[in-house]
Amino acid sequence: MELTAGHVWIMVSAALVLLMTPGLAFFYGGMTRAKAALNMMMMSFISIGMVGVIWVLWGYSMTSGDGFLQMVGNPFANFGLEGIDTPDGLITVGFGATFAIITVALISGAIADRAKFGAWTVFVPVWVTLVYCPLAYMVWGGGLFSTEGAVGAALGEAIDFAGGTVVHINAGVAALILVFIVGNRRGFGKDPNHRPHNIPFVMLGAAILWFGWFGFNGGAASTAEQGGLIWVNTLAAPAAAMLGWLVTERIRDGHPTSLGAASGVVAGLVAITPACDNVSPVGALGLGVVAGVASALAVGLKFRWGFDDSLDVVGVHLVSGIIGTVALGFIALPEEGAGGGLFYGGGMTQMWAQLAAAGIAIAYSAVLTTIIALAIHKTMGFRVSQEQETVGVDLSLHAETAYEFGVGGHGGSFQPLHDMITGKTQADAAQASDAATGAQKTESATGKESVGA
Amino acid sequence: MELTAGHVWIMVSAALVLLMTPGLAFFYGGMTRAKAALNMMMMSFISIGMVGVIWVLWGYSMTSGDGFLQMVGNPFANFGLEGIDTPDGLITVGFGATFAIITVALISGAIADRAKFGAWTVFVPVWVTLVYCPLAYMVWGGGLFSTEGAVGAALGEAIDFAGGTVVHINAGVAALILVFIVGNRRGFGKDPNHRPHNIPFVMLGAAILWFGWFGFNGGAASTAEQGGLIWVNTLAAPAAAMLGWLVTERIRDGHPTSLGAASGVVAGLVAITPACDNVSPVGALGLGVVAGVASALAVGLKFRWGFDDSLDVVGVHLVSGIIGTVALGFIALPEEGAGGGLFYGGGMTQMWAQLAAAGIAIAYSAVLTTIIALAIHKTMGFRVSQEQETVGVDLSLHAETAYEFGVGGHGGSFQPLHDMITGKTQADAAQASDAATGAQKTESATGKESVGA
Amino acid sequence: MELTAGHVWIMVSAALVLLMTPGLAFFYGGMTRAKAALNMMMMSFISIGMVGVIWVLWGYSMTSGDGFLQMVGNPFANFGLEGIDTPDGLITVGFGATFAIITVALISGAIADRAKFGAWTVFVPVWVTLVYCPLAYMVWGGGLFSTEGAVGAALGEAIDFAGGTVVHINAGVAALILVFIVGNRRGFGKDPNHRPHNIPFVMLGAAILWFGWFGFNGGAASTAEQGGLIWVNTLAAPAAAMLGWLVTERIRDGHPTSLGAASGVVAGLVAITPACDNVSPVGALGLGVVAGVASALAVGLKFRWGFDDSLDVVGVHLVSGIIGTVALGFIALPEEGAGGGLFYGGGMTQMWAQLAAAGIAIAYSAVLTTIIALAIHKTMGFRVSQEQETVGVDLSLHAETAYEFGVGGHGGSFQPLHDMITGKTQADAAQASDAATGAQKTESATGKESVGA
Repeated sequence: MELTAGHVWIMVSAALVLLMTPGLAFFYGGMTRAKAALNMMMMSFISIGMVGVIWVLWGYSMTSGDGFLQMVGNPFANFGLEGIDTPDGLITVGFGATFAIITVALISGAIADRAKFGAWTVFVPVWVTLVYCPLAYMVWGGGLFSTEGAVGAALGEAIDFAGGTVVHINAGVAALILVFIVGNRRGFGKDPNHRPHNIPFVMLGAAILWFGWFGFNGGAASTAEQGGLIWVNTLAAPAAAMLGWLVTERIRDGHPTSLGAASGVVAGLVAITPACDNVSPVGALGLGVVAGVASALAVGLKFRWGFDDSLDVVGVHLVSGIIGTVALGFIALPEEGAGGGLFYGGGMTQMWAQLAAAGIAIAYSAVLTTIIALAIHKTMGFRVSQEQETVGVDLSLHAETAYEFGVGGHGGSFQPLHDMITGKTQADAAQASDAATGAQKTESATGKESVGA
Repeated sequence: MELTAGHVWIMVSAALVLLMTPGLAFFYGGMTRAKAALNMMMMSFISIGMVGVIWVLWGYSMTSGDGFLQMVGNPFANFGLEGIDTPDGLITVGFGATFAIITVALISGAIADRAKFGAWTVFVPVWVTLVYCPLAYMVWGGGLFSTEGAVGAALGEAIDFAGGTVVHINAGVAALILVFIVGNRRGFGKDPNHRPHNIPFVMLGAAILWFGWFGFNGGAASTAEQGGLIWVNTLAAPAAAMLGWLVTERIRDGHPTSLGAASGVVAGLVAITPACDNVSPVGALGLGVVAGVASALAVGLKFRWGFDDSLDVVGVHLVSGIIGTVALGFIALPEEGAGGGLFYGGGMTQMWAQLAAAGIAIAYSAVLTTIIALAIHKTMGFRVSQEQETVGVDLSLHAETAYEFGVGGHGGSFQPLHDMITGKTQADAAQASDAATGAQKTESATGKESVGA
Repeated sequence: MELTAGHVWIMVSAALVLLMTPGLAFFYGGMTRAKAALNMMMMSFISIGMVGVIWVLWGYSMTSGDGFLQMVGNPFANFGLEGIDTPDGLITVGFGATFAIITVALISGAIADRAKFGAWTVFVPVWVTLVYCPLAYMVWGGGLFSTEGAVGAALGEAIDFAGGTVVHINAGVAALILVFIVGNRRGFGKDPNHRPHNIPFVMLGAAILWFGWFGFNGGAASTAEQGGLIWVNTLAAPAAAMLGWLVTERIRDGHPTSLGAASGVVAGLVAITPACDNVSPVGALGLGVVAGVASALAVGLKFRWGFDDSLDVVGVHLVSGIIGTVALGFIALPEEGAGGGLFYGGGMTQMWAQLAAAGIAIAYSAVLTTIIALAIHKTMGFRVSQEQETVGVDLSLHAETAYEFGVGGHGGSFQPLHDMITGKTQADAAQASDAATGAQKTESATGKESVGA
């Protein structure tokens, strides 16, 4: 079948969504300390690698077709993507893969700087198989929450156009569980060095995420009206959320920050995700403001309550994911066969469906993630040693450092990051530099050497 | 209505153009000093936030429909995007938003390192409402310069396919005005530290801009012939302009620079913007060379004339914007109902229209921007204090620094940028480092301490 | 003709592929030392500039239409893109340009840190004209290897859907030749400073390359089935290759690295390029694993054999390019009129065609590149002076440095990279800093000055 506009749109959207995960790698990687940046980015990259392979083998198969108890699709029905023979079959497979990839990658931000990379490479495939795929099947694949499903029939179908429950609530809950199992970083809440090492990278990440999100939210649109509404809402909500977050910061702290702008954008994107096809542009603005303010306030709770959700996965994805999902109970536009949200006189029907979907996603993700993460932690251990954490996971797990700004030619006096991490002092470096460059060393009259460096 | 190829093209183009503003944030942010990089990027980001919201509320409405005196659309006609009910209505709205966003963001490069962020957050919404929207209405929305408009009828319609007047001349003039009102940076033209702090970011920004520009120029194409011509011209002109700029540098300074390559690309993109649908590929090459050489020469004028257009908004956008707009008087291809430019025997008709459009855009933008900027400057002030400027606007306005390459674990001797900006000397840091690592401190025979650091 | 889905797909794909070359600039630029990063990026950027112009003038014309001896198209047939009048003519021209651009840019990674920029600006246009264009004509333009061509008729048409021979084998061979002609870097294999200076940039580059590769591989798809298969394969192969590379590293070195993840992705993308439309998704996984492992092993050979392929162009592009091309002899899917590879019972027919194509591409590229590079090296010289190499090509060729993290305000004690490269010691900078800030200078009792810096 010749390429149609719809095919092209999905293929482009899928490429956009795939780019989001490297975008996330920069969003998260920029927020960590320099000595853990590569490891953070690797947690995203390996998610692409592992889930990319899983999706072809059994992942896609588990999210479609006839399922077990309306909860999970058959991994062997289309194992290796055999038997997919509709024209747009593989296009849909590709699009779906990108959602599974980013969902598990989102979780990694909660355990920055301290997770064993080996444990993460066990967590990713197991979690995608046992948590993501079943939930995607239940919500989008014809399972429990769809109109044909038991819950959907009883409570009415919840609206989750692009992944408020399956992606953001799911990942946010899993992140929270992992924090409790892996534990806080050394110095959490006290060490002033727990600061983003490269905020431009955070902004680059946010920009790539926003760009890709037009595919994430829009890829499933099939009409021009739907496409246009989703596009505008995917601009409006994060724009408003950015302003909401910055105003909150301005009032609370006196300064609007770049980190706040980037985080606000993501909060708004998360909130509009389930709602992008079912609220008006003005509704999207309102939803964005609420999400921006709420997440700006929520990210402070980790310090008060003492859980080290290092890069604010819970505060942004869980909080704004719930806000977006529940907001549909208020502001869903009325449609054929659906009365809309409370504000449109649709009564509580939609609200119950939304609350049920959010609640079940939270419960399902919490229980399964706890089992998986505990199993890993009790066997191989999920956390690096204290020394590895102090040295930095980049060097201790990957034998790399992110940056090497030193220069080799003249025995440059700019001390390589590598040396610092391994504990050499600047004095050592300066002396080495002096030796190399023949800089003056003065012998004092008393025989003591004083080095001008 | 089912998605058509045209809808998909505009939605993709709109996403591309939205990405251009973060691209601009990197293009500009890399060119500033490290202590002002975040602020520079924030000026772009906040433009997305504010204009994104404005566009939904009243911005779009002001650029379409019946207008006042053929000069400005009615902000209440489609306030909140109410009443937009054609299939591609909202798609068009989204595409238009991205142009308004980047236009105001472009201006920010002229006042790097020294503008109050609060003042900028007043300037952005006012300028977009009073300058951008009316001009967009006059040129593209059926106003003064269109065929139905008074000027268009008298002088013939000027060609401005993608924004030579509305975007680049407009932003370039506004940038020049702001320089005069805000004033030069301390040390302008003398301080050797006024150098780009991260040229790879500049190149990243240029690359993203070029990528997005295919949507910027191409989004409005409706036929394959038009799409192909625009695509090729959007490759050819900046390619030629890059070469033109580099050859100019090579002859004048002896070295072709990376900064020149990136700037040349942007100059070529600016020049081809109004002309992308109306010149041949060879015409685009010629236009690119002229723009590259001219802007390479123009950016030096600020030092001679003493106006601190910090990141060359005037030299690139105003100069190449005028070149592209006026060039159509020479090289516009003849079309049905239009004789083409001078070189095609079309006489002066097109030239007059182009000159009129450029002239009116300059005058309109200059007058309105002066009023707006002066009003802000005389009331709240547009410029930070001398101390804030010296410390750096990142720290003084946003309480952040872009980079933190120091390491916390071992009391690393790599002094955090933060400390430097706040005025600690390296000696302080070295001593702290020595204390932490137990490096040798020698007490001289005379009782004086000399620290080997 | 109104835009069709196919037109939109090619225009988007072409923009994606153009973005790949700046992506390559970051992939390569991050791998060099800081003092050579800009020069590395400039080699990619100038390729866009020069080939962009050449393509419009004579490049495209040489790859289509009637050719000389089935080997090279007529540069004057469509000089300046005259006479291209089919609706999708210029769209195709644009798409083709992006392939020529990236192919020559790929070569640059082999001669990092030591090539004269002037020599490179001679090499690029000559190589594209004499090597790339003829090979593209022979494989894709109706020449020697096509079904109508002499070799194609004799041996059966080789499959090279998106550029295994024309792009990757071709560039890989040329890279190897250049290494021998230009020679190794000083300190190759010994100097521990020969390390990537910015690994996040390498990962950014890999991400952009992957993103763009969906256009690179997919742009020529005309049906939904083809588009979907290519999309999924372009996800599957690099995902599997990343895992293959990382497992190889884990076993051999004990650590999976970020550099390995990024390199593995590129190896997988290279391998799937010729095969993307002709293998199953499971075949793509297998091909990816093989390519990832093979390239991971191959990049070590340069140290054993002593050729300084600085950024592994040979190990990745030549090795995985050959793997992907030859693999089709094993795993090409049977199609109408083609029996498929050995594993599908298709016999050796396809294998001979693939081996012939790979062999001829290697021979053609080797001979022509040797002639061109030697001619340049013997006349103007291809290599910078020893001093320029030691100082760093950024400063010596472009009068720039990539980063300037120092701060000007307080006479910051953070020594600018620039000074280091030019040979100033930290002591000089500290003294300058002291003088500027009025820091204490102590005169010792013996009359000797000891500076606390």
